[in-house]
Amino acid sequence: MTEERDTAESLPVPEGFEKLSRGGPYFIALGPVYEKKTGERDAIFGVRISPGHLNAGGIAHGGMLATLADSILGIAILRANRDKRIATVNLTTDFLEAARQGDWVEAHVEIHRSGNRLAFADCVLQVGERRILRASGVFAMSPKV
Amino acid sequence: MTEERDTAESLPVPEGFEKLSRGGPYFIALGPVYEKKTGERDAIFGVRISPGHLNAGGIAHGGMLATLADSILGIAILRANRDKRIATVNLTTDFLEAARQGDWVEAHVEIHRSGNRLAFADCVLQVGERRILRASGVFAMSPKV
Amino acid sequence: MTEERDTAESLPVPEGFEKLSRGGPYFIALGPVYEKKTGERDAIFGVRISPGHLNAGGIAHGGMLATLADSILGIAILRANRDKRIATVNLTTDFLEAARQGDWVEAHVEIHRSGNRLAFADCVLQVGERRILRASGVFAMSPKV
Amino acid sequence: MTEERDTAESLPVPEGFEKLSRGGPYFIALGPVYEKKTGERDAIFGVRISPGHLNAGGIAHGGMLATLADSILGIAILRANRDKRIATVNLTTDFLEAARQGDWVEAHVEIHRSGNRLAFADCVLQVGERRILRASGVFAMSPKV
Repeated sequence: MTEERDTAESLPVPEGFEKLSRGGPYFIALGPVYEKKTGERDAIFGVRISPGHLNAGGIAHGGMLATLADSILGIAILRANRDKRIATVNLTTDFLEAARQGDWVEAHVEIHRSGNRLAFADCVLQVGERRILRASGVFAMSPKV
Repeated sequence: MTEERDTAESLPVPEGFEKLSRGGPYFIALGPVYEKKTGERDAIFGVRISPGHLNAGGIAHGGMLATLADSILGIAILRANRDKRIATVNLTTDFLEAARQGDWVEAHVEIHRSGNRLAFADCVLQVGERRILRASGVFAMSPKV
Repeated sequence: MTEERDTAESLPVPEGFEKLSRGGPYFIALGPVYEKKTGERDAIFGVRISPGHLNAGGIAHGGMLATLADSILGIAILRANRDKRIATVNLTTDFLEAARQGDWVEAHVEIHRSGNRLAFADCVLQVGERRILRASGVFAMSPKV
Repeated sequence: MTEERDTAESLPVPEGFEKLSRGGPYFIALGPVYEKKTGERDAIFGVRISPGHLNAGGIAHGGMLATLADSILGIAILRANRDKRIATVNLTTDFLEAARQGDWVEAHVEIHRSGNRLAFADCVLQVGERRILRASGVFAMSPKV
Protein backbone atom coordinates (compact mmCIF):
# COMPACT_ATOMS: atom_id res chain seq x y z
CA MET A 1 0.00 0.00 0.00
CA THR A 2 2.99 2.30 0.54
CA GLU A 3 3.37 2.66 -3.17
CA GLU A 4 -0.24 3.63 -3.75
CA ARG A 5 -0.13 6.11 -0.89
CA ASP A 6 2.99 7.68 -2.36
CA THR A 7 1.24 7.97 -5.69
CA ALA A 8 -1.79 9.61 -4.12
CA GLU A 9 0.24 11.98 -2.01
CA SER A 10 2.56 12.89 -4.85
CA LEU A 11 -0.32 14.35 -6.85
CA PRO A 12 0.19 18.11 -6.92
CA VAL A 13 -1.53 20.40 -4.40
CA PRO A 14 -3.31 23.26 -6.22
CA GLU A 15 -1.55 26.61 -6.19
CA GLY A 16 -1.95 28.84 -3.16
CA PHE A 17 -2.67 26.03 -0.67
CA GLU A 18 -0.50 25.60 2.42
CA LYS A 19 -0.39 22.79 4.96
CA LEU A 20 -2.30 23.34 8.19
CA SER A 21 0.31 22.82 10.87
CA ARG A 22 -1.81 22.53 14.03
CA GLY A 23 -4.29 20.04 15.42
CA GLY A 24 -4.46 17.04 17.72
CA PRO A 25 -3.34 13.47 16.94
CA TYR A 26 -6.58 12.34 15.24
CA PHE A 27 -6.67 15.32 12.89
CA ILE A 28 -2.95 14.97 12.08
CA ALA A 29 -3.40 11.26 11.27
CA LEU A 30 -6.07 12.27 8.72
CA GLY A 31 -3.11 13.30 6.56
CA PRO A 32 -2.14 16.80 5.48
CA VAL A 33 -5.08 19.20 5.28
CA TYR A 34 -4.36 22.34 3.31
CA GLU A 35 -5.85 25.81 3.25
CA LYS A 36 -5.81 28.77 0.94
CA LYS A 37 -6.60 32.13 2.52
CA THR A 38 -9.28 34.00 0.63
CA GLY A 39 -9.70 36.88 3.06
CA GLU A 40 -8.71 38.03 6.51
CA ARG A 41 -10.75 35.30 8.14
CA ASP A 42 -11.90 33.22 5.18
CA ALA A 43 -10.20 30.20 3.69
CA ILE A 44 -10.78 27.26 1.40
CA PHE A 45 -9.68 23.93 2.88
CA GLY A 46 -8.37 21.07 0.76
CA VAL A 47 -7.32 17.45 1.17
CA ARG A 48 -6.22 14.72 -1.23
CA ILE A 49 -8.02 11.37 -0.79
CA SER A 50 -5.34 8.76 -0.08
CA PRO A 51 -5.57 4.95 0.25
CA GLY A 52 -5.73 5.24 4.04
CA HIS A 53 -9.04 7.14 3.74
CA LEU A 54 -10.94 4.35 2.01
CA ASN A 55 -13.62 2.01 3.29
CA ALA A 56 -14.04 -1.65 2.34
CA GLY A 57 -15.90 -0.54 -0.79
CA GLY A 58 -12.91 1.43 -2.08
CA ILE A 59 -14.34 4.94 -1.60
CA ALA A 60 -13.62 7.56 1.07
CA HIS A 61 -15.04 6.39 4.44
CA GLY A 62 -18.01 8.44 5.61
CA GLY A 63 -16.26 8.91 8.94
CA MET A 64 -13.21 10.39 7.20
CA LEU A 65 -15.38 12.99 5.48
CA ALA A 66 -17.26 13.66 8.74
CA THR A 67 -13.92 14.12 10.52
CA LEU A 68 -12.79 16.58 7.87
CA ALA A 69 -16.08 18.49 8.09
CA ASP A 70 -16.09 18.61 11.91
CA SER A 71 -12.48 19.81 11.93
CA ILE A 72 -12.78 22.61 9.39
CA LEU A 73 -16.09 23.84 10.85
CA GLY A 74 -14.35 24.05 14.22
CA ILE A 75 -11.25 25.78 12.80
CA ALA A 76 -13.37 28.40 11.04
CA ILE A 77 -15.48 29.13 14.13
CA LEU A 78 -12.41 29.41 16.38
CA ARG A 79 -10.78 31.85 13.96
CA ALA A 80 -13.83 34.06 14.08
CA ASN A 81 -13.96 33.79 17.90
CA ARG A 82 -10.40 33.85 19.18
CA ASP A 83 -11.48 34.41 22.78
CA LYS A 84 -13.56 31.22 22.89
CA ARG A 85 -13.26 27.49 23.37
CA ILE A 86 -15.69 25.27 21.47
CA ALA A 87 -17.10 21.75 21.58
CA THR A 88 -19.18 20.07 18.89
CA VAL A 89 -22.80 19.60 20.00
CA ASN A 90 -24.34 18.27 16.77
CA LEU A 91 -22.84 17.30 13.44
CA THR A 92 -25.16 16.37 10.58
CA THR A 93 -23.70 14.99 7.37
CA ASP A 94 -25.43 14.21 4.07
CA PHE A 95 -23.45 12.01 1.70
CA LEU A 96 -24.15 13.22 -1.83
CA GLU A 97 -21.62 11.26 -3.90
CA ALA A 98 -18.53 9.12 -3.46
CA ALA A 99 -15.00 10.56 -3.20
CA ARG A 100 -12.30 8.35 -4.68
CA GLN A 101 -8.57 7.86 -4.19
CA GLY A 102 -6.65 10.74 -5.72
CA ASP A 103 -9.63 13.15 -5.60
CA TRP A 104 -8.77 16.65 -4.41
CA VAL A 105 -11.57 17.63 -1.99
CA GLU A 106 -12.21 21.32 -1.28
CA ALA A 107 -14.53 23.03 1.15
CA HIS A 108 -15.52 26.49 2.24
CA VAL A 109 -17.18 27.06 5.63
CA GLU A 110 -20.14 29.38 6.08
CA ILE A 111 -20.84 30.56 9.63
CA HIS A 112 -24.55 31.19 10.01
CA ARG A 113 -24.55 32.46 13.55
CA SER A 114 -22.01 32.80 16.26
CA GLY A 115 -23.32 33.85 19.65
CA ASN A 116 -22.05 33.77 23.21
CA ARG A 117 -23.15 30.21 23.88
CA LEU A 118 -23.72 28.56 20.50
CA ALA A 119 -22.37 28.77 16.97
CA PHE A 120 -23.83 27.30 13.77
CA ALA A 121 -21.92 26.67 10.55
CA ASP A 122 -22.03 24.49 7.47
CA CYS A 123 -19.90 23.44 4.54
CA VAL A 124 -20.11 21.55 1.27
CA LEU A 125 -17.18 19.31 0.26
CA GLN A 126 -16.57 19.32 -3.47
CA VAL A 127 -14.34 17.52 -5.99
CA GLY A 128 -14.22 20.08 -8.76
CA GLU A 129 -17.85 21.01 -9.37
CA ARG A 130 -19.09 17.68 -7.99
CA ARG A 131 -20.55 18.00 -4.47
CA ILE A 132 -19.82 14.99 -2.26
CA LEU A 133 -20.80 15.98 1.30
CA ARG A 134 -23.02 18.58 2.91
CA ALA A 135 -22.40 19.06 6.62
CA SER A 136 -23.75 21.33 9.31
CA GLY A 137 -22.60 21.69 12.86
CA VAL A 138 -23.74 23.19 16.13
CA PHE A 139 -20.98 24.14 18.57
CA ALA A 140 -21.08 25.10 22.24
CA MET A 141 -18.98 28.17 23.04
CA SER A 142 -17.31 28.99 26.34
CA PRO A 143 -14.75 31.64 27.32
CA LYS A 144 -11.11 30.70 26.88
CA VAL A 145 -9.54 30.47 30.32
CA MET B 1 3.45 8.92 22.42
CA THR B 2 4.24 5.25 21.79
CA GLU B 3 4.37 4.63 25.48
CA GLU B 4 1.00 6.20 26.17
CA ARG B 5 -0.58 4.26 23.32
CA ASP B 6 0.80 1.04 24.73
CA THR B 7 -0.65 1.90 28.10
CA ALA B 8 -4.06 2.63 26.64
CA GLU B 9 -4.08 -0.47 24.49
CA SER B 10 -2.83 -2.66 27.27
CA LEU B 11 -5.92 -1.96 29.37
CA PRO B 12 -7.98 -5.15 29.49
CA VAL B 13 -10.82 -5.78 27.04
CA PRO B 14 -14.00 -6.81 28.89
CA GLU B 15 -14.85 -10.51 28.85
CA GLY B 16 -16.66 -11.88 25.84
CA PHE B 17 -15.44 -9.28 23.35
CA GLU B 18 -13.56 -10.35 20.22
CA LYS B 19 -11.70 -8.26 17.66
CA LEU B 20 -13.58 -7.42 14.47
CA SER B 21 -11.31 -8.70 11.75
CA ARG B 22 -12.79 -7.08 8.64
CA GLY B 23 -13.09 -3.56 7.27
CA GLY B 24 -11.28 -1.16 4.95
CA PRO B 25 -8.11 0.82 5.71
CA TYR B 26 -9.82 3.76 7.43
CA PHE B 27 -11.77 1.53 9.81
CA ILE B 28 -8.70 -0.62 10.56
CA ALA B 29 -6.63 2.50 11.34
CA LEU B 30 -9.27 3.43 13.95
CA GLY B 31 -7.64 0.73 16.06
CA PRO B 32 -9.16 -2.54 17.15
CA VAL B 33 -12.94 -2.50 17.41
CA TYR B 34 -14.40 -5.37 19.39
CA GLU B 35 -17.77 -7.04 19.51
CA LYS B 36 -19.64 -9.35 21.83
CA LYS B 37 -22.43 -11.37 20.27
CA THR B 38 -25.66 -11.06 22.22
CA GLY B 39 -27.90 -12.95 19.81
CA GLU B 40 -27.95 -14.46 16.34
CA ARG B 41 -27.74 -11.02 14.74
CA ASP B 42 -27.22 -8.73 17.70
CA ALA B 43 -23.95 -7.55 19.15
CA ILE B 44 -22.44 -4.95 21.45
CA PHE B 45 -19.48 -3.13 19.93
CA GLY B 46 -16.58 -1.81 22.01
CA VAL B 47 -13.45 0.27 21.56
CA ARG B 48 -10.80 1.63 23.92
CA ILE B 49 -10.00 5.35 23.49
CA SER B 50 -6.28 5.59 22.73
CA PRO B 51 -3.98 8.66 22.37
CA GLY B 52 -4.36 8.55 18.58
CA HIS B 53 -8.11 9.24 18.96
CA LEU B 54 -7.71 12.58 20.70
CA ASN B 55 -8.24 16.12 19.44
CA ALA B 56 -6.18 19.18 20.38
CA GLY B 57 -8.26 19.50 23.55
CA GLY B 58 -7.25 16.07 24.81
CA ILE B 59 -10.61 14.31 24.37
CA ALA B 60 -11.82 11.87 21.70
CA HIS B 61 -12.19 13.72 18.37
CA GLY B 62 -15.81 14.07 17.24
CA GLY B 63 -14.83 12.60 13.89
CA MET B 64 -13.46 9.49 15.59
CA LEU B 65 -16.76 8.91 17.39
CA ALA B 66 -18.69 9.64 14.16
CA THR B 67 -16.47 7.14 12.31
CA LEU B 68 -17.17 4.51 14.96
CA ALA B 69 -20.92 5.20 14.81
CA ASP B 70 -21.07 5.14 10.99
CA SER B 71 -19.09 1.88 10.91
CA ILE B 72 -21.11 -0.06 13.48
CA LEU B 73 -24.44 1.16 12.08
CA GLY B 74 -23.30 -0.11 8.68
CA ILE B 75 -22.05 -3.44 10.05
CA ALA B 76 -25.33 -4.08 11.87
CA ILE B 77 -27.46 -3.24 8.82
CA LEU B 78 -25.34 -5.43 6.51
CA ARG B 79 -25.64 -8.36 8.92
CA ALA B 80 -29.41 -8.04 8.88
CA ASN B 81 -29.39 -7.73 5.06
CA ARG B 82 -26.72 -10.10 3.72
CA ASP B 83 -27.95 -9.79 0.12
CA LYS B 84 -27.50 -6.01 0.05
CA ARG B 85 -24.84 -3.36 -0.47
CA ILE B 86 -25.23 -0.13 1.47
CA ALA B 87 -24.04 3.47 1.36
CA THR B 88 -24.49 6.09 4.08
CA VAL B 89 -26.96 8.80 3.03
CA ASN B 90 -27.20 10.78 6.27
CA LEU B 91 -25.38 10.52 9.57
CA THR B 92 -26.48 12.71 12.47
CA THR B 93 -24.42 12.80 15.64
CA ASP B 94 -25.17 14.50 18.96
CA PHE B 95 -22.20 14.88 21.28
CA LEU B 96 -23.44 14.39 24.84
CA GLU B 97 -20.20 14.24 26.82
CA ALA B 98 -16.48 13.86 26.32
CA ALA B 99 -14.74 10.48 26.00
CA ARG B 100 -11.21 10.40 27.43
CA GLN B 101 -8.09 8.36 26.88
CA GLY B 102 -8.45 4.90 28.39
CA ASP B 103 -12.29 5.01 28.35
CA TRP B 104 -13.93 1.78 27.14
CA VAL B 105 -16.73 2.86 24.79
CA GLU B 106 -19.63 0.48 24.13
CA ALA B 107 -22.55 0.70 21.73
CA HIS B 108 -25.56 -1.29 20.68
CA VAL B 109 -27.25 -0.63 17.33
CA GLU B 110 -31.01 -0.47 16.95
CA ILE B 111 -32.37 -0.89 13.42
CA HIS B 112 -35.62 1.06 13.11
CA ARG B 113 -36.51 0.11 9.57
CA SER B 114 -34.83 -1.79 6.83
CA GLY B 115 -36.58 -1.71 3.46
CA ASN B 116 -35.61 -2.45 -0.12
CA ARG B 117 -34.16 0.97 -0.79
CA LEU B 118 -33.47 2.57 2.59
CA ALA B 119 -32.52 1.52 6.09
CA PHE B 120 -32.62 3.57 9.31
CA ALA B 121 -30.70 2.78 12.49
CA ASP B 122 -29.32 4.48 15.56
CA CYS B 123 -26.96 3.89 18.44
CA VAL B 124 -25.83 5.44 21.70
CA LEU B 125 -22.15 5.24 22.65
CA GLN B 126 -21.61 4.81 26.38
CA VAL B 127 -18.71 4.73 28.84
CA GLY B 128 -20.22 2.65 31.62
CA GLU B 129 -23.57 4.33 32.30
CA ARG B 130 -22.40 7.66 30.93
CA ARG B 131 -23.77 8.40 27.44
CA ILE B 132 -21.29 10.21 25.20
CA LEU B 133 -22.74 10.11 21.66
CA ARG B 134 -26.15 9.61 20.12
CA ALA B 135 -26.04 8.85 16.39
CA SER B 136 -28.60 8.01 13.74
CA GLY B 137 -28.01 7.01 10.16
CA VAL B 138 -29.94 6.64 6.93
CA PHE B 139 -28.49 4.15 4.46
CA ALA B 140 -29.26 3.51 0.78
CA MET B 141 -29.66 -0.19 -0.05
CA SER B 142 -28.94 -1.86 -3.37
CA PRO B 143 -28.74 -5.53 -4.38
CA LYS B 144 -25.35 -7.17 -4.01
CA VAL B 145 -24.07 -7.95 -7.49
CA MET C 1 -63.92 17.64 4.54
CA THR C 2 -65.75 18.37 7.77
CA GLU C 3 -67.33 14.97 7.62
CA GLU C 4 -64.03 13.15 7.25
CA ARG C 5 -62.55 15.14 10.08
CA ASP C 6 -65.46 14.21 12.29
CA THR C 7 -64.94 10.59 11.40
CA ALA C 8 -61.25 10.74 12.20
CA GLU C 9 -61.74 12.58 15.44
CA SER C 10 -64.57 10.36 16.52
CA LEU C 11 -62.32 7.29 16.52
CA PRO C 12 -61.83 6.22 20.11
CA VAL C 13 -58.81 7.33 22.13
CA PRO C 14 -57.10 4.32 23.76
CA GLU C 15 -57.77 3.78 27.47
CA GLY C 16 -55.76 5.78 29.95
CA PHE C 17 -54.98 8.70 27.66
CA GLU C 18 -55.96 12.23 28.64
CA LYS C 19 -55.90 15.43 26.64
CA LEU C 20 -52.90 17.71 27.13
CA SER C 21 -54.45 21.01 28.12
CA ARG C 22 -51.54 23.41 27.77
CA GLY C 23 -49.47 24.79 24.92
CA GLY C 24 -49.33 27.75 22.57
CA PRO C 25 -51.54 28.43 19.52
CA TYR C 26 -49.51 26.39 17.03
CA PHE C 27 -49.47 23.30 19.25
CA ILE C 28 -53.18 23.64 20.05
CA ALA C 29 -54.03 23.91 16.34
CA LEU C 30 -52.27 20.58 15.82
CA GLY C 31 -55.39 19.05 17.33
CA PRO C 32 -55.72 17.27 20.63
CA VAL C 33 -52.52 15.57 21.78
CA TYR C 34 -53.04 12.99 24.52
CA GLU C 35 -50.82 11.50 27.15
CA LYS C 36 -50.86 8.49 29.42
CA LYS C 37 -48.73 8.71 32.53
CA THR C 38 -46.47 5.70 32.94
CA GLY C 39 -44.47 6.95 35.91
CA GLU C 40 -43.87 10.00 38.01
CA ARG C 41 -42.18 11.78 35.13
CA ASP C 42 -42.74 9.41 32.23
CA ALA C 43 -45.58 9.41 29.75
CA ILE C 44 -46.64 8.05 26.39
CA PHE C 45 -47.98 10.70 24.03
CA GLY C 46 -50.66 9.98 21.44
CA VAL C 47 -52.40 11.74 18.56
CA ARG C 48 -54.95 10.67 15.95
CA ILE C 49 -54.06 11.62 12.35
CA SER C 50 -56.92 13.77 11.03
CA PRO C 51 -57.58 15.19 7.53
CA GLY C 52 -56.07 18.52 8.54
CA HIS C 53 -52.70 16.79 9.06
CA LEU C 54 -52.33 15.55 5.49
CA ASN C 55 -50.08 16.73 2.68
CA ALA C 56 -51.00 16.86 -1.01
CA GLY C 57 -50.14 13.15 -1.28
CA GLY C 58 -52.76 12.19 1.31
CA ILE C 59 -50.40 11.18 4.11
CA ALA C 60 -49.40 13.01 7.31
CA HIS C 61 -47.26 16.06 6.43
CA GLY C 62 -43.63 15.73 7.53
CA GLY C 63 -43.94 19.09 9.24
CA MET C 64 -46.88 17.85 11.31
CA LEU C 65 -44.84 14.89 12.58
CA ALA C 66 -41.85 17.17 13.19
CA THR C 67 -44.10 19.55 15.15
CA LEU C 68 -45.39 16.66 17.25
CA ALA C 69 -41.84 15.41 17.89
CA ASP C 70 -40.47 18.87 18.79
CA SER C 71 -43.40 19.49 21.15
CA ILE C 72 -43.26 16.22 23.08
CA LEU C 73 -39.45 16.31 23.36
CA GLY C 74 -39.80 19.78 24.83
CA ILE C 75 -42.61 18.79 27.20
CA ALA C 76 -40.63 15.81 28.51
CA ILE C 77 -37.46 17.85 29.07
CA LEU C 78 -39.36 20.64 30.84
CA ARG C 79 -41.03 18.12 33.17
CA ALA C 80 -37.65 16.75 34.14
CA ASN C 81 -36.27 20.29 34.63
CA ARG C 82 -39.03 22.39 36.18
CA ASP C 83 -36.66 25.24 37.04
CA LYS C 84 -35.60 25.73 33.42
CA ARG C 85 -36.68 27.40 30.21
CA ILE C 86 -35.75 25.68 26.97
CA ALA C 87 -35.36 26.49 23.29
CA THR C 88 -34.87 23.98 20.47
CA VAL C 89 -31.36 24.18 19.01
CA ASN C 90 -31.46 21.24 16.60
CA LEU C 91 -34.22 18.87 15.55
CA THR C 92 -33.39 15.93 13.30
CA THR C 93 -36.18 13.81 11.90
CA ASP C 94 -35.98 10.57 9.88
CA PHE C 95 -39.18 9.60 8.09
CA LEU C 96 -39.46 5.82 8.21
CA GLU C 97 -42.96 5.22 6.87
CA ALA C 98 -46.15 7.09 6.08
CA ALA C 99 -48.84 7.82 8.68
CA ARG C 100 -52.39 7.84 7.29
CA GLN C 101 -55.67 9.43 8.24
CA GLY C 102 -57.17 7.68 11.26
CA ASP C 103 -53.83 6.25 12.44
CA TRP C 104 -53.25 6.50 16.18
CA VAL C 105 -49.63 7.67 16.61
CA GLU C 106 -47.83 7.02 19.90
CA ALA C 107 -44.46 8.10 21.16
CA HIS C 108 -42.27 7.79 24.20
CA VAL C 109 -39.47 10.27 24.86
CA GLU C 110 -36.03 9.18 26.04
CA ILE C 111 -33.86 11.87 27.59
CA HIS C 112 -30.20 11.04 26.96
CA ARG C 113 -28.62 13.90 28.83
CA SER C 114 -29.89 16.94 30.59
CA GLY C 115 -27.25 19.38 31.79
CA ASN C 116 -27.15 22.99 32.88
CA ARG C 117 -26.88 24.40 29.38
CA LEU C 118 -27.97 21.66 26.98
CA ALA C 119 -30.38 18.73 26.92
CA PHE C 120 -30.57 15.86 24.42
CA ALA C 121 -33.58 13.61 23.84
CA ASP C 122 -35.13 11.45 21.17
CA CYS C 123 -38.35 9.66 20.36
CA VAL C 124 -39.80 7.19 17.89
CA LEU C 125 -43.36 7.72 16.66
CA GLN C 126 -45.22 4.46 16.11
CA VAL C 127 -48.57 3.31 14.71
CA GLY C 128 -48.99 0.03 16.55
CA GLU C 129 -45.70 -1.78 15.99
CA ARG C 130 -44.97 0.16 12.80
CA ARG C 131 -42.34 2.91 13.31
CA ILE C 132 -43.03 6.03 11.26
CA LEU C 133 -40.66 8.72 12.56
CA ARG C 134 -37.39 8.81 14.49
CA ALA C 135 -36.55 12.23 15.91
CA SER C 136 -33.79 13.63 18.07
CA GLY C 137 -33.49 17.08 19.54
CA VAL C 138 -30.92 19.29 21.17
CA PHE C 139 -32.30 21.97 23.50
CA ALA C 140 -30.66 25.01 25.10
CA MET C 141 -31.46 25.39 28.79
CA SER C 142 -31.61 28.59 30.78
CA PRO C 143 -32.83 29.38 34.30
CA LYS C 144 -36.51 30.23 34.61
CA VAL C 145 -36.80 33.88 35.60
CA MET D 1 -57.00 36.43 18.75
CA THR D 2 -58.83 37.21 15.51
CA GLU D 3 -57.86 40.82 15.82
CA GLU D 4 -54.19 40.10 16.27
CA ARG D 5 -54.22 37.73 13.33
CA ASP D 6 -55.86 40.38 11.17
CA THR D 7 -53.18 42.83 12.17
CA ALA D 8 -50.39 40.42 11.34
CA GLU D 9 -51.92 39.39 8.05
CA SER D 10 -52.66 42.94 7.04
CA LEU D 11 -48.96 43.82 7.03
CA PRO D 12 -47.90 44.36 3.44
CA VAL D 13 -46.38 41.56 1.38
CA PRO D 14 -43.14 42.72 -0.30
CA GLU D 15 -43.37 43.60 -3.98
CA GLY D 16 -43.19 40.81 -6.49
CA PHE D 17 -44.45 38.04 -4.18
CA GLU D 18 -47.53 36.00 -5.15
CA LYS D 19 -49.52 33.52 -3.10
CA LEU D 20 -48.70 29.84 -3.64
CA SER D 21 -52.04 28.36 -4.58
CA ARG D 22 -51.39 24.63 -4.26
CA GLY D 23 -50.69 22.21 -1.44
CA GLY D 24 -52.45 19.84 0.92
CA PRO D 25 -54.52 20.75 4.01
CA TYR D 26 -51.60 20.98 6.46
CA PHE D 27 -49.61 23.31 4.22
CA ILE D 28 -52.68 25.47 3.49
CA ALA D 29 -53.44 25.79 7.21
CA LEU D 30 -49.91 27.19 7.69
CA GLY D 31 -51.35 30.39 6.21
CA PRO D 32 -50.49 31.97 2.90
CA VAL D 33 -46.98 31.18 1.69
CA TYR D 34 -45.74 33.50 -1.05
CA GLU D 35 -43.11 33.22 -3.72
CA LYS D 36 -41.23 35.55 -6.01
CA LYS D 37 -39.79 34.01 -9.15
CA THR D 38 -36.13 34.84 -9.58
CA GLY D 39 -35.46 32.63 -12.58
CA GLU D 40 -37.03 29.91 -14.70
CA ARG D 41 -36.86 27.45 -11.82
CA ASP D 42 -35.68 29.60 -8.93
CA ALA D 43 -37.82 31.43 -6.42
CA ILE D 44 -37.68 33.11 -3.04
CA PHE D 45 -40.38 31.97 -0.65
CA GLY D 46 -41.93 34.22 1.96
CA VAL D 47 -44.33 34.01 4.88
CA ARG D 48 -45.54 36.46 7.53
CA ILE D 49 -45.42 35.14 11.13
CA SER D 50 -48.96 35.35 12.50
CA PRO D 51 -50.34 34.70 16.01
CA GLY D 52 -51.34 31.17 15.01
CA HIS D 53 -47.67 30.30 14.42
CA LEU D 54 -46.55 30.98 17.97
CA ASN D 55 -45.56 28.62 20.77
CA ALA D 56 -46.27 29.08 24.47
CA GLY D 57 -43.20 31.34 24.70
CA GLY D 58 -44.61 33.80 22.16
CA ILE D 59 -42.18 33.05 19.30
CA ALA D 60 -42.70 31.04 16.11
CA HIS D 61 -43.02 27.31 16.98
CA GLY D 62 -40.07 25.22 15.81
CA GLY D 63 -42.51 22.86 14.13
CA MET D 64 -43.98 25.73 12.10
CA LEU D 65 -40.53 26.67 10.79
CA ALA D 66 -39.74 22.99 10.12
CA THR D 67 -43.04 22.65 8.23
CA LEU D 68 -42.18 25.70 6.12
CA ALA D 69 -38.68 24.35 5.41
CA ASP D 70 -39.89 20.84 4.52
CA SER D 71 -42.57 22.28 2.22
CA ILE D 72 -40.38 24.69 0.26
CA LEU D 73 -37.54 22.16 -0.07
CA GLY D 74 -40.07 19.72 -1.52
CA ILE D 75 -41.61 22.34 -3.85
CA ALA D 76 -38.19 23.32 -5.21
CA ILE D 77 -37.12 19.71 -5.81
CA LEU D 78 -40.41 18.83 -7.54
CA ARG D 79 -40.08 21.85 -9.84
CA ALA D 80 -36.64 20.72 -10.88
CA ASN D 81 -37.90 17.13 -11.37
CA ARG D 82 -41.38 17.33 -12.88
CA ASP D 83 -41.44 13.63 -13.76
CA LYS D 84 -40.90 12.53 -10.15
CA ARG D 85 -42.74 11.95 -6.90
CA ILE D 86 -40.86 12.63 -3.69
CA ALA D 87 -41.02 11.75 -0.01
CA THR D 88 -38.98 13.30 2.79
CA VAL D 89 -36.41 10.87 4.19
CA ASN D 90 -34.54 13.17 6.58
CA LEU D 91 -35.10 16.75 7.67
CA THR D 92 -32.52 18.43 9.88
CA THR D 93 -33.24 21.85 11.33
CA ASP D 94 -30.95 24.18 13.30
CA PHE D 95 -32.70 26.97 15.15
CA LEU D 96 -30.47 30.04 15.01
CA GLU D 97 -32.73 32.78 16.38
CA ALA D 98 -36.36 33.43 17.23
CA ALA D 99 -38.93 34.63 14.68
CA ARG D 100 -41.62 36.91 16.12
CA GLN D 101 -45.16 37.85 15.22
CA GLY D 102 -45.22 40.17 12.23
CA ASP D 103 -41.76 39.07 11.00
CA TRP D 104 -41.55 38.52 7.24
CA VAL D 105 -39.57 35.29 6.77
CA GLU D 106 -37.83 34.65 3.45
CA ALA D 107 -35.98 31.62 2.15
CA HIS D 108 -34.17 30.48 -0.94
CA VAL D 109 -33.65 26.76 -1.61
CA GLU D 110 -30.35 25.37 -2.86
CA ILE D 111 -30.48 21.90 -4.43
CA HIS D 112 -27.13 20.17 -3.85
CA ARG D 113 -27.84 16.97 -5.74
CA SER D 114 -30.81 15.50 -7.46
CA GLY D 115 -30.39 11.93 -8.70
CA ASN D 116 -32.69 9.13 -9.76
CA ARG D 117 -33.33 7.87 -6.26
CA LEU D 118 -32.36 10.64 -3.87
CA ALA D 119 -32.28 14.43 -3.78
CA PHE D 120 -30.52 16.72 -1.29
CA ALA D 121 -31.34 20.37 -0.68
CA ASP D 122 -31.06 23.02 2.00
CA CYS D 123 -32.33 26.46 2.86
CA VAL D 124 -31.79 29.27 5.34
CA LEU D 125 -34.82 31.18 6.63
CA GLN D 126 -34.12 34.86 7.18
CA VAL D 127 -35.89 37.91 8.62
CA GLY D 128 -34.10 40.69 6.77
CA GLU D 129 -30.41 39.91 7.26
CA ARG D 130 -31.08 37.94 10.46
CA ARG D 131 -30.87 34.16 9.94
CA ILE D 132 -33.38 32.22 12.01
CA LEU D 133 -33.34 28.63 10.68
CA ARG D 134 -30.95 26.46 8.71
CA ALA D 135 -32.55 23.32 7.30
CA SER D 136 -31.41 20.48 5.10
CA GLY D 137 -33.45 17.67 3.65
CA VAL D 138 -32.95 14.31 1.98
CA PHE D 139 -35.76 13.19 -0.30
CA ALA D 140 -36.53 9.82 -1.91
CA MET D 141 -37.44 10.09 -5.59
CA SER D 142 -39.67 7.76 -7.55
CA PRO D 143 -41.16 8.00 -11.05
CA LYS D 144 -44.51 9.74 -11.30
CA VAL D 145 -47.10 7.15 -12.28
